[in-house]
Amino acid sequence: MQKLQDILASIKPPDNTLYNEARNRLDKMAIPRGSLGRLEEFAQRVVAIRNTLTPEVKKKKVVVFAGDHGVVEEGVSAFPQDVTMQMVYNFIEGGAGINVLARHVGAEVMVVDMGVAGDLEPREGLLIKKVAKGTKNMAKTPAMTREDAIRALTIGIEIAWDLNSEEVDIIGTGDMGIGNTTPSAAISSVLTKQDPEKVTGRGTGINDEGLKRKIAVIKKSINLHCPDPDDPIDVLSKVGGFEIAGIAGLIIGAAFHRIPVVIDGFISTTAAVVAVSLNPVIREYFFAAHKSVEYGHAMLLEWMEQRPILDLSMRLGEGTGAALGMSLIEAGVKIMHEVLTFDEAGVRKAIR
Amino acid sequence: MQKLQDILASIKPPDNTLYNEARNRLDKMAIPRGSLGRLEEFAQRVVAIRNTLTPEVKKKKVVVFAGDHGVVEEGVSAFPQDVTMQMVYNFIEGGAGINVLARHVGAEVMVVDMGVAGDLEPREGLLIKKVAKGTKNMAKTPAMTREDAIRALTIGIEIAWDLNSEEVDIIGTGDMGIGNTTPSAAISSVLTKQDPEKVTGRGTGINDEGLKRKIAVIKKSINLHCPDPDDPIDVLSKVGGFEIAGIAGLIIGAAFHRIPVVIDGFISTTAAVVAVSLNPVIREYFFAAHKSVEYGHAMLLEWMEQRPILDLSMRLGEGTGAALGMSLIEAGVKIMHEVLTFDEAGVRKAIR
Repeated sequence: MQKLQDILASIKPPDNTLYNEARNRLDKMAIPRGSLGRLEEFAQRVVAIRNTLTPEVKKKKVVVFAGDHGVVEEGVSAFPQDVTMQMVYNFIEGGAGINVLARHVGAEVMVVDMGVAGDLEPREGLLIKKVAKGTKNMAKTPAMTREDAIRALTIGIEIAWDLNSEEVDIIGTGDMGIGNTTPSAAISSVLTKQDPEKVTGRGTGINDEGLKRKIAVIKKSINLHCPDPDDPIDVLSKVGGFEIAGIAGLIIGAAFHRIPVVIDGFISTTAAVVAVSLNPVIREYFFAAHKSVEYGHAMLLEWMEQRPILDLSMRLGEGTGAALGMSLIEAGVKIMHEVLTFDEAGVRKAIR
Repeated sequence: MQKLQDILASIKPPDNTLYNEARNRLDKMAIPRGSLGRLEEFAQRVVAIRNTLTPEVKKKKVVVFAGDHGVVEEGVSAFPQDVTMQMVYNFIEGGAGINVLARHVGAEVMVVDMGVAGDLEPREGLLIKKVAKGTKNMAKTPAMTREDAIRALTIGIEIAWDLNSEEVDIIGTGDMGIGNTTPSAAISSVLTKQDPEKVTGRGTGINDEGLKRKIAVIKKSINLHCPDPDDPIDVLSKVGGFEIAGIAGLIIGAAFHRIPVVIDGFISTTAAVVAVSLNPVIREYFFAAHKSVEYGHAMLLEWMEQRPILDLSMRLGEGTGAALGMSLIEAGVKIMHEVLTFDEAGVRKAIR
């Protein structure tokens, strides 16, 4: 594989000509022009991303990146840290929210141990790529070294390479990591240059006091390390997480291979902010699955000029929003391929 | 079958106790409480509607009601009238938008000729229940007799009876009828007591001049017949349509049989307004699939206090929104049944 900087530099915008050609095909369908709204837009975007007028959205994969966070010592999460590992097993057994929704839409789930704070046994559907057993507590010391941040990004990119070889048509991102809304809020705050208050929410459900503490921890961490907003890798190292870096890498690798990526909620969107900060063109390769109710998510979507597909008041993560979103993108592509034209269907066109 | 008034009177609110019991099950799932947002709400509502804690959403059917409208003489539509019949054949052949989306979500499509202005050949998947070959031009004379309005409503109710016998788990509504946004706007205007301007949009795509003409035709028709806003059947007779009445009947019959109904766009929502005007409890038995871009639709949803599931800038009708919406309701019910509890998954609960 090429070096990170070379990969980033070689990502070019999707093909505008094909985007417009797809529009022509859609305009011939025996429906009032544009009446399938965003489904048509999804089809056009997939055409441009895949660089073909006949893209498929069949083989769908949700990749759930898992990692732990030293900062949970500061009392920023409603759940204990070992839940990360327990949930990874739950994903592998097929009993979690993401498993149910992935089955519902016909997608596979793959779990990646990026940095869970314990030893996971090798199992089918689990890729062990552990960078370390959890990040360090960013309130005291940088979360990881710069080398580890690059390593985690590279793991994500390599997974995109593998998915490209497997001929996956569309990728969904997912996350699991107790405490991970804290580093996500910290990263987002630095990269979008917003106050931590604007991007910090209740995560799995902390109370008012917990939220105050969480914001204070984020401010303290940022003040302590002064991450450079113009150097996303510096930000990842100082206040990031392994799973967040992994997702960012996957997004970069998918853009390189022209595979559409469906971004899940707040954590995945933070990873997308990292990727877009490394190369703004990348945002043209992904779809925002949904608007989560996690505070700050809507702002991040706006910052990247993304219009989410769904708005179902969800805030679970795991890739649950991505699974539902990819099914609607698939629907759009099927519309383009399968709806008959006026001529094919023998239907008369508009008269006025 | 009982008389219309008896059926309407026998529809009671869904079971609140079971709604709350479903909440208990959802709260035991190994996810932060309520983090699957509206998916959980959908599951609770289906439980209450079906009156069982273990409802299924497997057998899904979209019923597309077709009818023609004498008022097209007035130049209110961008498409010629014979497109209604051509599209019915397109539905039967499987080449239309609704066919693609129904296949995508695993739903069947059934088409009902309620009043197409031509003779359709009997075909599999087509139910011929023609009340008349199109309504009369409401700008000159009432669209149909009161008897025909009741007949059309009854046909819809009878279809719900059949779907109940077939053990259909969830029903989607769809419409086809060139010109049918005009009677829909007229009905909506009268029943919600709003000016015609507030509920009249461009339908399949008329221009500014066409829109002015359409509003004028609606006003003229209402002024000519003075439909009684407290008598929805009078409104249907004077400014309605056969397919709109059929959909209203289906919604009533589904509520009677406790089958959840997913309401499509503007036309179906108008039919829902008719049903709710006949018995307000009925609105607790349906889901609003999406917010269409047809002007007036959002107002009708608000009038019935409905929060749409999707917002994809669609405005095709045919049941396309309903097909997508029912898949998300199915997802919610699967979540309730298939996500493991904290105990089952061996996952620790919140600590703070």
